Amino acid sequence: MPVVTLTTDFGTGSSYVAQMKGVLLSLCRETPTIVDLSHEIPPQDVFAGAMFLGDACPRFPPKTLHIAVIDPGVGTSRRIVYAELGEQKFIGPDNGLFSLVAKSLVPKLIVSIENEKFWLPERSQTFHGRDIMAPVAAAVMNKVDPREFGPRVERLELNRSWPECETKGCYQVSGEVVHVDSFGNLITNIPVGALLDEFDQPSVADVQIRSEIIRGLSKTYGDAPSGSLIALIDSGGRLEIAVVNESAAELLQAGRGEKVVVRTE
Amino acid sequence: MPVVTLTTDFGTGSSYVAQMKGVLLSLCRETPTIVDLSHEIPPQDVFAGAMFLGDACPRFPPKTLHIAVIDPGVGTSRRIVYAELGEQKFIGPDNGLFSLVAKSLVPKLIVSIENEKFWLPERSQTFHGRDIMAPVAAAVMNKVDPREFGPRVERLELNRSWPECETKGCYQVSGEVVHVDSFGNLITNIPVGALLDEFDQPSVADVQIRSEIIRGLSKTYGDAPSGSLIALIDSGGRLEIAVVNESAAELLQAGRGEKVVVRTE
Amino acid sequence: MPVVTLTTDFGTGSSYVAQMKGVLLSLCRETPTIVDLSHEIPPQDVFAGAMFLGDACPRFPPKTLHIAVIDPGVGTSRRIVYAELGEQKFIGPDNGLFSLVAKSLVPKLIVSIENEKFWLPERSQTFHGRDIMAPVAAAVMNKVDPREFGPRVERLELNRSWPECETKGCYQVSGEVVHVDSFGNLITNIPVGALLDEFDQPSVADVQIRSEIIRGLSKTYGDAPSGSLIALIDSGGRLEIAVVNESAAELLQAGRGEKVVVRTE
Repeated sequence: MPVVTLTTDFGTGSSYVAQMKGVLLSLCRETPTIVDLSHEIPPQDVFAGAMFLGDACPRFPPKTLHIAVIDPGVGTSRRIVYAELGEQKFIGPDNGLFSLVAKSLVPKLIVSIENEKFWLPERSQTFHGRDIMAPVAAAVMNKVDPREFGPRVERLELNRSWPECETKGCYQVSGEVVHVDSFGNLITNIPVGALLDEFDQPSVADVQIRSEIIRGLSKTYGDAPSGSLIALIDSGGRLEIAVVNESAAELLQAGRGEKVVVRTE
Repeated sequence: MPVVTLTTDFGTGSSYVAQMKGVLLSLCRETPTIVDLSHEIPPQDVFAGAMFLGDACPRFPPKTLHIAVIDPGVGTSRRIVYAELGEQKFIGPDNGLFSLVAKSLVPKLIVSIENEKFWLPERSQTFHGRDIMAPVAAAVMNKVDPREFGPRVERLELNRSWPECETKGCYQVSGEVVHVDSFGNLITNIPVGALLDEFDQPSVADVQIRSEIIRGLSKTYGDAPSGSLIALIDSGGRLEIAVVNESAAELLQAGRGEKVVVRTE
Repeated sequence: MPVVTLTTDFGTGSSYVAQMKGVLLSLCRETPTIVDLSHEIPPQDVFAGAMFLGDACPRFPPKTLHIAVIDPGVGTSRRIVYAELGEQKFIGPDNGLFSLVAKSLVPKLIVSIENEKFWLPERSQTFHGRDIMAPVAAAVMNKVDPREFGPRVERLELNRSWPECETKGCYQVSGEVVHVDSFGNLITNIPVGALLDEFDQPSVADVQIRSEIIRGLSKTYGDAPSGSLIALIDSGGRLEIAVVNESAAELLQAGRGEKVVVRTE
C-alpha cells in the first residue's frame, strides 16, 4: 500500500494538518497510508526540520513519499520541489529543508513544481502545503509522471546555517549542540567518524561542555549511576551528552548552539 | 477504504483517545483508516472545536465519518447526534460543536443517538466518546442504517457564543481574534467577504489591534521584512494579523477575544 | 488488516518515533495499520506507561500487537520481551511496563527477545525501540513463530512502585492520585470495588483530599454547578476528583502522589 508521510511545524492545535490530510485523501484515487512523522518541528525552523528528515526518512521503505512543510518563505519566490533522493520521494519548499537527506540519499530527479494543473483551483497565498503540495502529492500517488509538474532543476538549495564540526588536527574536535530531545539529552553535530579520525581511542577522550569536563565515553545510559553526567555516541552516530535518568538540558542549562569540545591531553 | 477522523480535547497524555481507537477497531468489521485531526483542542472549548471542524472537515472525501468529542456536558441531558452535512458524516455531542460545519455543509439528516443496542454494554457516566460515540461510529462503518440510532431531529444546536463581526455601514468592520496558531498568528472572525462588501479597496484599509494601526493588507508573509506587523487574508479567507517570521501573539501580547477594527478614513 | 500500536515517552519533537515507523513499514511484508496511542508518556515514567497500557490495550481487537517503549534501562541487562496476554500481543522492555495489563489479561506466552537474527544488523546502544523492538514486531507481523525470538520466561517483572490503596477495615479506604488528565481531573488508585467492599453505600461516603472534604459521590460532571469540587467514579472504575468545568489539579494544587481518604462516620 502506498505510504505518504507528513512533517510540519504546524502543531495540531490548529486545523492546518487536518486540512492537508483532507485534501490528500480527497484526491488520491487509492486511500494511502498517511503516517504522521512530526508536527512539532519548532515554528519556521528549517534547520531542525532538515535534521529531523535526515534522521527519519532513510528508514522508510522505497517509494515512500515524504511531504515536509517548514516554509517561512511561503508565498514568495522560493521554489517548491519534488525530489527523488535514493529510493525516497519528497515534496516541500526548496529552502534547505532537504539538505541533510540529500547528504545520505543520492539525488536522482529534482523538479520545480510550477504546473498549476495539479494544484487546487482556489489557492491562498499563505498555505501552499494544502493548496499546492498536498494535491501534487496526490498526483504522485496517482502515478502522474513527475516531469509533468514542472522543469527539472539541477540541485537542491543547501541550508547554509548548518554548523559543521571542526577538526583542528591537534587531537581536538569542536562542535555544538544541534538538538535537545524529550529526555533533555543534548545531541551534537560531532559524528563518531570525526572522533575516530582524530583520536586513537575516542572512548577515553575528554568532552567539555560549559565548565564541565566529562572523562571518556559511556556505552549507554545505564553504565553510570543515576544523576551522572555522561557523553556517549547516540543512535544517530553523533556525540551526545546526557545525565543518567535526568535532563542534561536542565542540569547544565544548555540548549542548541552550546559549544562542545572533545580533546585528549 | 472507509475513513474515520477523530477530533478531541483529550490530549494524548491520558489513554482516552487510545481507548476510543481500540473500541473502533474492535467493532468495525473492516479495518478503517483512522485519521487523527487533533487531540489538542483546548479542554472543553466547544467554540475552538467548532472552528476547527468548520475549517477541516469540508476538505475530506465524501462519506468520511468525523467523530468529535469536546463534551463538557457529558452524562447530562445534552443530546448525542449523528449528522449528515453535505457529503460528510459526523458523530458528537449536540452542544454547538457542529455550528460552523453546518454553515458550509447543508444538513441532510440529523438523528438523536438513543438506541442503546449500538452502545457498549458496560458504560461509564463520564466517557461517552468511548462508550457511545465510538461503537455507534463502528455501526456507521458497518453500514447500519443511521435511522436505527434514534429519532430524527430537525436542527442542530448552535453555538451562541460565536462572535460575529459587525459592519457599521460607515466604512468600518469590527471583529475579534478567534484563534492563535502555532506561529502566533492572530486569526480574526472577519471574513474577506465582509471587507469586500464594505470597502472599495480592502487592500488599502487600516487595521487596528490594541494601539497598533496597520496600513493596508499584505498578500503573504514574505512581502514585508522580518519583524514587520502585517495584516493579510489567511488561508481560511479571514483577516489575520501576523508578524513576519515572529509571533504576533507574543509581540502584541494579544490572544483570543482581542478586538480588531478595519476602517478607511 | 494487522494492527500495531505505538506507546512511547519520546515526544514527536525528535525523530525517534518516525524512525521506528520507518523500520516497521520497511520490514513488514504487508503494510500494517500503525496506530499511535501516545508519545507523551512522561519521560522514563514506567509507572505512567504501565497505567496507560492497562487502560488502553484491553480495548483493542484480538491479535493487536502493542509496542511500548518507556525504557530507562536501555542498553543494560534488563530483558526485552514478547508477551501474549489474553488475546493481545506486546513487545517492550521487561521493566514493569506490563504490570497492569498482566493483571487484567492472562499471560499465555512470554519470550525473552535474544535471537539477533531478527534485529537490525547495525544497532545502537541507546535505541532498542528502533533496532530491536521494531524489527521483531515486523517479524511478528510477518508471522514468524515467536518462540524463535528466544527462550520462554515464566513471568513478567512487576512494577514494585505501584501504590496499592489500603483498606483499614474500619470504614476507611486510603489511596492516592496516580494520574492527572488534560482536564486537570485527579485519578486515584482507589477502585470502585474497594469502595463497594468497605461501605454499604459508597455514594454517601466522604472523600478527603488536602484539607477539602467532599460529601458523597456525584454520577457525572454535569450533576453539580460549574466550579464545584466533586468526587465520582471515573471511566476506568476508579475514584476521581474533579472540579466541574475547571481543573482540580490547579484549584487544589494537587498532583500525582497526593493522598486521598474515603470514610464514613
